Amino acid sequence: MDTERNPRDHIQSLERGFAVLQAFDEQRTNPTLAELAAATGLARPVVRRILITLENLGYVRGEAGRWSLTPRVLSIGHHYSASHAVVEVSQPHLLRLAEQTNESASLAALDGSEVVYIGRVPVRRIMSINVAIGTRIPAHATSLGRVLLAWAPAERVQQVIDETGLRAFTERTITDPAEFRRNLATVRRQGYSLVAGELEEGLVSLSAPVRDPAGNVVAALATSTSTARADLDRLRGEIAPLVIRTAEAISSDYGYKATSGKATSTVHTAHEGFF
Amino acid sequence: MDTERNPRDHIQSLERGFAVLQAFDEQRTNPTLAELAAATGLARPVVRRILITLENLGYVRGEAGRWSLTPRVLSIGHHYSASHAVVEVSQPHLLRLAEQTNESASLAALDGSEVVYIGRVPVRRIMSINVAIGTRIPAHATSLGRVLLAWAPAERVQQVIDETGLRAFTERTITDPAEFRRNLATVRRQGYSLVAGELEEGLVSLSAPVRDPAGNVVAALATSTSTARADLDRLRGEIAPLVIRTAEAISSDYGYKATSGKATSTVHTAHEGFF
Repeated sequence: MDTERNPRDHIQSLERGFAVLQAFDEQRTNPTLAELAAATGLARPVVRRILITLENLGYVRGEAGRWSLTPRVLSIGHHYSASHAVVEVSQPHLLRLAEQTNESASLAALDGSEVVYIGRVPVRRIMSINVAIGTRIPAHATSLGRVLLAWAPAERVQQVIDETGLRAFTERTITDPAEFRRNLATVRRQGYSLVAGELEEGLVSLSAPVRDPAGNVVAALATSTSTARADLDRLRGEIAPLVIRTAEAISSDYGYKATSGKATSTVHTAHEGFF
Repeated sequence: MDTERNPRDHIQSLERGFAVLQAFDEQRTNPTLAELAAATGLARPVVRRILITLENLGYVRGEAGRWSLTPRVLSIGHHYSASHAVVEVSQPHLLRLAEQTNESASLAALDGSEVVYIGRVPVRRIMSINVAIGTRIPAHATSLGRVLLAWAPAERVQQVIDETGLRAFTERTITDPAEFRRNLATVRRQGYSLVAGELEEGLVSLSAPVRDPAGNVVAALATSTSTARADLDRLRGEIAPLVIRTAEAISSDYGYKATSGKATSTVHTAHEGFF
């Protein structure tokens, strides 16, 4: 917002409340007040008042000196899904894609220099990739992030480069800014991103852009697999067109009309040229 | 918590912050400051400071006088899933159940007099029941709620009866407290709940209890279908044992050991007697 800002407008107790809520995780599933104070760096009396307030609101529960989140906290994320129609319109398409590929299908949005899963249809596999709605992964080393950055303004791309330093997760991670920008240009030209083993050895994913009614790329659709199952030729020849078509169908259900057919035909032409 | 309470410990600005966050929904996906003030009953300067704080924290975004939630709010719900291992251990079981039944499989927890979906594997169908993680439905008229209440203390049941008045949603909804309690006793005896058309005409669901390592029923597993597809005999004869076995497998993966075999054998005996 371009409203005039004053640091005094920032409500500290609200920030602290969220800090306490975010301190519950895998490592601290049933923390004590002392553990939450240590995790947040807040004084115990402050944490105590926050916990009492959160308990009054039904977001946490205290028992025998230990605290836990209640399922009510899920309602906050649910409001995101409810207010972002793309999550709902994507559901049947994610399911169909998961059935057609027999691989997990995901929808993600960009948040800072990370992507956040906003939709997901998992497929049962012994080696399935374990992510849930709300899971965050680095944008720069994933096909989801590459797609979201390929159509983002140059300053957003620069911001991600600056914030992450294009940190390497494997030997394959693209870490050179110039090569990274060339990769994004290729993604834009071919209409999809294929990333193999840059975040994690053995992980392959292929993503395509989802557009809002105004034509902005607001989400990315991905199918993920393991290199053990992946046949890169089949991915490029069969799966890429399927993921692109599915992403276009989601965009269309979301209200995007490729008026001149430009956006889609660009994708198709480049895409046909690619194979 | 049995900490001594003082109403002054309640942090009003924290409560108001959550009220603003919860005011974003299907009806208000991109509200203005004025709309949020109207929805929460808070003064505009108060809402403005809350929005500035939430934007600083990355939970909302303002553009051209309209506000929207960012995917960062999903991380709060994600912390619930991450800190409740039952959500994670249930995933492969939900998938297998959805595959075996070709119907959506769900996991839910009790929150007040409602149940909240904490896990879900949807199955594509034209008439599929549209719910997402975090969706809330009334406990008293659903099989998920009946299971969670069947093993809950009597005062919790009384509380739900008082709060909901066992409101009727269809002509079939059980609204008489005595009949409701008899139904819960039956659920406990047979080890599952089958509810047909009490929340919505045409909706059938079958649920079984999931236990934590201490043996407490902390979640319910359900398979849902439409009366059009449902064959009640098949549901009782084939699906009920499958849902019970799956719920037991989740409990077992979660760390519950039916030491004397009592809990499970009670279920099985009653269950065999029922068919």
